[in-house]
Amino acid sequence: MPNVKIVSEAELRALIALDADAVDCVERGFCALAEGKVVMPPIMSMPVREHNGEICVKAAYVPGMDSFAVKMSPGFFDNPKLGLPSSTGMMVLYSARTGMLEALLLDNGYLTDVRTAAAGAVAARHLAPAAAATACVIGAGMQARLQLKALLLERPITSATLWARDPDKARDVARELTDELGIPVTVPGELGEAVSAADVVITTTPSSTPLVMADWLRPGQLVIAMGSDQGHKCELEPACLTRADLYVPDSQAQTAERGELRAAIAAGIISEDQSFVELGQVAAGLAPKHTGDDAIVIADLTGTGVQDTAIATYAFAKAAEAGLGSDFAN
Amino acid sequence: MPNVKIVSEAELRALIALDADAVDCVERGFCALAEGKVVMPPIMSMPVREHNGEICVKAAYVPGMDSFAVKMSPGFFDNPKLGLPSSTGMMVLYSARTGMLEALLLDNGYLTDVRTAAAGAVAARHLAPAAAATACVIGAGMQARLQLKALLLERPITSATLWARDPDKARDVARELTDELGIPVTVPGELGEAVSAADVVITTTPSSTPLVMADWLRPGQLVIAMGSDQGHKCELEPACLTRADLYVPDSQAQTAERGELRAAIAAGIISEDQSFVELGQVAAGLAPKHTGDDAIVIADLTGTGVQDTAIATYAFAKAAEAGLGSDFAN
Repeated sequence: MPNVKIVSEAELRALIALDADAVDCVERGFCALAEGKVVMPPIMSMPVREHNGEICVKAAYVPGMDSFAVKMSPGFFDNPKLGLPSSTGMMVLYSARTGMLEALLLDNGYLTDVRTAAAGAVAARHLAPAAAATACVIGAGMQARLQLKALLLERPITSATLWARDPDKARDVARELTDELGIPVTVPGELGEAVSAADVVITTTPSSTPLVMADWLRPGQLVIAMGSDQGHKCELEPACLTRADLYVPDSQAQTAERGELRAAIAAGIISEDQSFVELGQVAAGLAPKHTGDDAIVIADLTGTGVQDTAIATYAFAKAAEAGLGSDFAN
Repeated sequence: MPNVKIVSEAELRALIALDADAVDCVERGFCALAEGKVVMPPIMSMPVREHNGEICVKAAYVPGMDSFAVKMSPGFFDNPKLGLPSSTGMMVLYSARTGMLEALLLDNGYLTDVRTAAAGAVAARHLAPAAAATACVIGAGMQARLQLKALLLERPITSATLWARDPDKARDVARELTDELGIPVTVPGELGEAVSAADVVITTTPSSTPLVMADWLRPGQLVIAMGSDQGHKCELEPACLTRADLYVPDSQAQTAERGELRAAIAAGIISEDQSFVELGQVAAGLAPKHTGDDAIVIADLTGTGVQDTAIATYAFAKAAEAGLGSDFAN
């Protein structure tokens, strides 16, 4: 059997950053998805209720990429009490031609963080107003930080607000982001006003009740809703989706099950049969360009296997180039 | 993060054999499944048609077991032309309490071979005639060998026949099994006669057309059909299932999709709504004992995530006990 390459989290952090290359890599994945030749099975979810945990498995085969990934993401939400992270994960890379095991990317969720933020950047690249200058981020976790950083790669953002349920945490993260990104990031007094004022609104929470109301939205605005990735989650009031001029899912099959679309269908305001242009079709130029300069646009991101295969294939190539990773003879 | 244990195929082969302990381990998995507390999501299948391949992912959480496994099985059927095996695979073991990655069992499919054969032994233990002395094995692959070996752990088999489409291959395997098992294994002239003559019939092929006809069956016989594990496969004429006095699936949710039950439902001779006692319920004593001494019994085995979690947890414990495996600090 061929050797297996094992790449550690530290090596992957040294190899892969949230930068234009990572965004281009994830964009290529979305473009391939739009061409209809990607094989992306439904997400496998296994709850472990006894321990307040779950594991999700995603996979995709992308023609033209040398490898495909199977990505496992455990989330065990009592872990912080034990001094352990809630969310970890790893990616397994196989040869697309032979199915031989090529690499174990022991990233503890780092590559997922990057490819998730990169999808936000792809949405901003194609759907945000060209001159977007202000952002409102909802949430104070890892993706709150990374999504704002990703947005700055694509648009000339000069200031941002950051709101979270816990105002102390919001203040801490806002201070850190101000230092890191070199733009003022402040905690707003009122969420509704902050949302209305922003050219790009990004929701990054695990909320199961809406945080953004439809009448807060205004023309010339992109909303990137990336927090909901399970059937019980929901960050936008369902009426946001009908108030929007354009609704763009990463994968409609997924958003109908676990994105903002799910709640809108459940509320009876969008029909199950309605078909939407997906992010990959927009990115590949297969749908009319629409930058949201004078419209309300919503991007609904649940996270797709194609992003995992794209980033894992890219990371494997970078590891080979740099001579990183350990060889395991089996 | 805690260290990850990496266990090679050679180490796993040294640690785990197809023996009574492995059968007991898999039986405990089936018993847990019968208690209704196991979480076993639908199998993830991803075809890679461009390269005549596929990958299946199975998982199960079994309360009472310290770990759970996610098992990946690629099958790329043009590989032999490249000098590579068609089927490989690995198992990833997580802590059931925290979801932390515990071990990578790089078994290249070996543990799957063992847990699959062990399920045949569990079926024989509970469903074969007590004095079963003769077996007929259909197929000449790895499972043809292992299933016969597994049956010998459970019943006083004194002779066997082995049939395969390729008679040369059948003769080679029969000769090898004669030497290995110490009982005469011969190639029959006529499959129908060989099936009728056997106390236990085991089908182990990837056939998509029936090989065993209903009117070949006779009372006092157990048929273990373990070849069909995909929606296009079928080894038994569907009428076998209605001719049988007892039909026992490993998991009815799975056999209705990818076992012999699928073809019987498609043929309209069994209703989708009919409910069957599963192997775990029989093994756990939750269903009436029925050894097939005077009945026709069919066990339909598609392979379950609970078997993977059972064998992977067992292998990890054995590796720890023996001090085998490499520690990877991440």
